[in-house]
Amino acid sequence: MADRDEAVTLDAGDPLRALYDRFVVADDGLIYLDGNSLGRLPRDTPARLTEVVSRQWGERLIRGWGEGWMRLPTTIGDRLGAGLLGAAAGQVAIADSTTVCLYKLAAAALAARPGRTEIVTDADNFPTDRYVLESLARERGCEIVWIECDPQSGPAPEQVCAVLGERTALVALSHVSYRSACILEQREITRLAHRAGALTLWDESHAVGAIPLTLDDDGVDLAAGCTYKYLNGGPGAPAFMYVRAEHQATLRQPIWGWLGRAQPFEMAPGWVPGEGIAAMLSGTPPVLALAAAAAGIDVVLEAGIDAIRRKSIELTQYAIDLIDEWLAPLGCSVGSPRDAAIRGSHVALVHPDARTLCPRLAGEGVLADFRTPDLIRLGLSPLTTRFVDVHDGLERLRELLRRE
Amino acid sequence: MADRDEAVTLDAGDPLRALYDRFVVADDGLIYLDGNSLGRLPRDTPARLTEVVSRQWGERLIRGWGEGWMRLPTTIGDRLGAGLLGAAAGQVAIADSTTVCLYKLAAAALAARPGRTEIVTDADNFPTDRYVLESLARERGCEIVWIECDPQSGPAPEQVCAVLGERTALVALSHVSYRSACILEQREITRLAHRAGALTLWDESHAVGAIPLTLDDDGVDLAAGCTYKYLNGGPGAPAFMYVRAEHQATLRQPIWGWLGRAQPFEMAPGWVPGEGIAAMLSGTPPVLALAAAAAGIDVVLEAGIDAIRRKSIELTQYAIDLIDEWLAPLGCSVGSPRDAAIRGSHVALVHPDARTLCPRLAGEGVLADFRTPDLIRLGLSPLTTRFVDVHDGLERLRELLRRE
Repeated sequence: MADRDEAVTLDAGDPLRALYDRFVVADDGLIYLDGNSLGRLPRDTPARLTEVVSRQWGERLIRGWGEGWMRLPTTIGDRLGAGLLGAAAGQVAIADSTTVCLYKLAAAALAARPGRTEIVTDADNFPTDRYVLESLARERGCEIVWIECDPQSGPAPEQVCAVLGERTALVALSHVSYRSACILEQREITRLAHRAGALTLWDESHAVGAIPLTLDDDGVDLAAGCTYKYLNGGPGAPAFMYVRAEHQATLRQPIWGWLGRAQPFEMAPGWVPGEGIAAMLSGTPPVLALAAAAAGIDVVLEAGIDAIRRKSIELTQYAIDLIDEWLAPLGCSVGSPRDAAIRGSHVALVHPDARTLCPRLAGEGVLADFRTPDLIRLGLSPLTTRFVDVHDGLERLRELLRRE
Repeated sequence: MADRDEAVTLDAGDPLRALYDRFVVADDGLIYLDGNSLGRLPRDTPARLTEVVSRQWGERLIRGWGEGWMRLPTTIGDRLGAGLLGAAAGQVAIADSTTVCLYKLAAAALAARPGRTEIVTDADNFPTDRYVLESLARERGCEIVWIECDPQSGPAPEQVCAVLGERTALVALSHVSYRSACILEQREITRLAHRAGALTLWDESHAVGAIPLTLDDDGVDLAAGCTYKYLNGGPGAPAFMYVRAEHQATLRQPIWGWLGRAQPFEMAPGWVPGEGIAAMLSGTPPVLALAAAAAGIDVVLEAGIDAIRRKSIELTQYAIDLIDEWLAPLGCSVGSPRDAAIRGSHVALVHPDARTLCPRLAGEGVLADFRTPDLIRLGLSPLTTRFVDVHDGLERLRELLRRE
């Protein structure tokens, strides 16, 4: 099993092998196990940026707004929705940071449930999600109900159910845990939230591009997620917002800007919501960043999410096998679900010295993320991680631990 | 005066002539009088983007965050502050759209003046500013006091003074009117607002890079502005926020995200404000867009704002002279201040058929902006507009009007 030749064989038989060559991989021997934090640069991206910068901006100038720029948030959004979110057209827009998108969506949800004063989330939810909810709770006089659960799994439906009630306005959770990679039961939790009269907001940052999503079928009300992880959109790439069609006429986000208004260029008095998902926009679309995001999304669409998911399961299982065989005797354990059905595309490795081990591993040419208090997060982005990368990365970690 | 040779001579003597060559100008004969809406592409920008995209993202990957990306909002902010805003270090950050920045700043101001329920603004303020204030007023139970004034000028200090009182929480105005280009008396209005116990929020979008700014000296509390107009940062480039140092410990913006928190990578429970201006940040910095914004800002810094202002006054005066001589007999009038001391870098031309004239002018190869109900806005961005552009653009408009 732990034979490097086997990893080489697995890579040779990888149906997504050709897609690996669609990304820039520097000839520096780096082992990159962090594509779940910042995805690699697609080879197409520089040319796509040159088209937008040098031709569209440089030559077409202000005319670019009439020649497609204005619709970029929703045209790219629809492409992402159809190919990766399980969302019919007209429900997705890309703009603003993930944090700002989460704020707008959560605020809209609270405003749509007047009289209800509780927001349900998970004490282990991603920091920016927690902070946004704390701010809104403080501002709107709401209370956060924190679900405490095993850090290796997210809240189960019955844990959510136990805290739902007639005061619950919103259930806001991450579909895939940024720490354990555990996949939550989005459909069932959403059903339970609806039964209690609450709305749901799902953060898909660690899910999109890694696992198939079915937002429409799951009954999800609101979702957001970032495009710089598995979607390879570039550092700080803009995020997407999903608002279920049936809510678009009634939900109102708080950052009223000219781009979310009906007929923005009339510049008329009084904000009137634009049609459909456009009402969720605020400021001028970030055209350069959107072009890079689109290039990243398009490579993932080309690969197809089912093939990506198959490889993701094989890669994460391979990593878990190596941890069990090599690293468990050296004090490591697996902090992610062993059941592939509820595991996203990263593997959390638990070690008491993770905080110091992670930079030392980087010194050995292996990049992964440290997450407090004791996790090394191995991000196995399926398009850009080879089985030999997993093998070599964990082998270097083994050598490092053996030298202790 | 209206001799093309004179325009050629003026260009030949322009001390900023060399800077013109630092921008991409396509060989298509286009006359671009819209650099106040979207600035031209600096020649340096593609190489700066290549450095960030292909080398930093492509090769350094996640390490980029430790190698400068994380500080981009404030390092570029400080450069902008020192060179163009009259702001000492530590008070400026670049991130998010102008709309989102205005929202964060206005919300912070209202929270800092509890018990006060009025927001003073101008009925002719830029749409996104008005909409943001309307949203916040509705959300926080405030009322907007709309100053009505001559559309060719913004509110004078005495008009602002007349509506200030113990209920005033915030005075939010544009320093330079997006319609008339009138420069408001920022320092005096700020002084009056302070005397009434209110805070001020200035939108510098049509001022920055066109006129010298002295935010520190003017006593300004809060300011925001976009980087894609006179700063040539690219379509939808991120905006800047200024928060006066003395307010940073107490003012709290509402979009609490991980990047505004102290020690973001601890990912600890509970939002705690980061130090200084960092507390105004929310999500992950948009690195690609920031690199383009920096390239645009740097060309303006190189030119120097005093030289830019001198040329701006000459260009706008030249345009006004041509309008008076050629176009006044054809039904046009000047909708901008004739006093250069209170005129920004665009000239509003008034004509009853402006709405149809503007696209017809575009058909003749002259790009300007239509603004309701009857303005053609001639944007004379000093670095990228030549006197011959003004001459030829207005000559084509004259021909068009003569054919009526």
